[in-house]
Amino acid sequence: MNKEFLDKKQLVDHRIEIAMESASFKDSPLYPAINYAVTAPGKRIRGVLTLAFCKRLSVPLEEAIPFAVALELIHAYSLVHDDLPEMDNDDYRRGLPTCHKKFGNAMALLAGDAILNYSIEYILKNRKLYQPNRLLNAIDVLYSSSGAEGMLGGQAIDKIGETRLLSLDELLELHNKKTGALLLAPILIASALADEKNENYVNYSKHIGLAFQIKDDILDVEGSSEKLGKKIGKDAEENKSTFVSIMGLDSAKNYLRNELLLAEKEAENDPFLVWLVQYIGGRDH
Amino acid sequence: MNKEFLDKKQLVDHRIEIAMESASFKDSPLYPAINYAVTAPGKRIRGVLTLAFCKRLSVPLEEAIPFAVALELIHAYSLVHDDLPEMDNDDYRRGLPTCHKKFGNAMALLAGDAILNYSIEYILKNRKLYQPNRLLNAIDVLYSSSGAEGMLGGQAIDKIGETRLLSLDELLELHNKKTGALLLAPILIASALADEKNENYVNYSKHIGLAFQIKDDILDVEGSSEKLGKKIGKDAEENKSTFVSIMGLDSAKNYLRNELLLAEKEAENDPFLVWLVQYIGGRDH
Repeated sequence: MNKEFLDKKQLVDHRIEIAMESASFKDSPLYPAINYAVTAPGKRIRGVLTLAFCKRLSVPLEEAIPFAVALELIHAYSLVHDDLPEMDNDDYRRGLPTCHKKFGNAMALLAGDAILNYSIEYILKNRKLYQPNRLLNAIDVLYSSSGAEGMLGGQAIDKIGETRLLSLDELLELHNKKTGALLLAPILIASALADEKNENYVNYSKHIGLAFQIKDDILDVEGSSEKLGKKIGKDAEENKSTFVSIMGLDSAKNYLRNELLLAEKEAENDPFLVWLVQYIGGRDH
Repeated sequence: MNKEFLDKKQLVDHRIEIAMESASFKDSPLYPAINYAVTAPGKRIRGVLTLAFCKRLSVPLEEAIPFAVALELIHAYSLVHDDLPEMDNDDYRRGLPTCHKKFGNAMALLAGDAILNYSIEYILKNRKLYQPNRLLNAIDVLYSSSGAEGMLGGQAIDKIGETRLLSLDELLELHNKKTGALLLAPILIASALADEKNENYVNYSKHIGLAFQIKDDILDVEGSSEKLGKKIGKDAEENKSTFVSIMGLDSAKNYLRNELLLAEKEAENDPFLVWLVQYIGGRDH
């Protein structure tokens, strides 16, 4: 493991815990389900990337943290809803029972809504830290990334991909939105807060976002359900359109390798960013 | 009908249509479900109240509109999710098939998420209209109203109220959150945008919020399913804790009458606000 990654992941985990402990809705019947979903162990790549790009663009750590936490909240809510019976109907996530298996479908639905809602509340709680216009720009790019044009739009295409085989273009759009949008959000947020662009980091983020999802598709075919903490072979079972189903396992691996190479080129020898490319390519969960 | 109400409702409806027509995700497979849910006919009380209180606190109309639209978006998404099988499992809403009946459960779930997400996107699109700090304060009160401490928390208590009879205190908390929070939000938003408080309007909003929900409970017992556009008698069928089930129909009506009187007192002879009290008390849908 890379030290910068570990340090930042620990910080993200810690600040997520604080965000939950300091929540104003601790006596709500929704709290246990929200807390369960949000504090479940995760890789926290989106939060870590937010801290990493903010640091590289000289955004103060305290300004980066609320967005790192909010991004992880949005990711967490998307998983809760994605696991529901009407979506992927998953019983396990990261080796633990999914939120609806533990708290029932209705509570999981509401908890997911409440987590998305809390992501906004949490940023707003910290609004005094920011130059207001930059804050507003950063909120704008965050929710453009998570909405119908971004992550949610990708999830909808994913559902359509269960009814017919998607074209490669559609699959690329699916992945760029469903997984890519929240992995591109960190550099867009950092840029908004710094009021400064960095094309290398944007390209890097696009390539790792796509690589991440192709790797996911491959892991569903040849991964270990023990290490993944969830059932494998589900994509094929549900007739999902994936890189593997559309181009075959070997071509998917080649595509992945190419995306990783392109990402590494944009990383410009930054040790953390180079390491993250290898981590995404080599991960087994 | 009151002229101020009608004029403002028309404006809210019109601006909701524009918000949908100008959405950046018109080619997303989610768009039809989102558009269906958002443009379904509704009373638009929350949006109208936002315009009305903003006017009374001298907030420019153009600043009021994005929040009126956002509040109606949040209300619309809450109905989509509330109608899902794991929640109230309703087939009809306002006389039309519910979103999941028309588009399937998965699309309705994602469309609901996307509508909540779009509410914040929509406000942010209009951010140049505002003094940034007041805008941030208004966003803060809006999402505190719709989150786990507000509307969503109330919906969770509502689910618990199906498993056991709630106490009157719990029922009041349920109603103040589930329905009350989004009816209190308009004056809180107006106050944030104007940077000016008005206790009468706050009290007024609390009383009409409670009255609105008690009336809902009563309509479920003695309303007309034709006029309501949905099945009646569902509360009793699902063993819901309501004003009627907890205190009986006559006491519920007395409670309603009292809340209406208290609201009218706070309206201070403002013709629109006085009319709205009578409208809420007398409505048959």
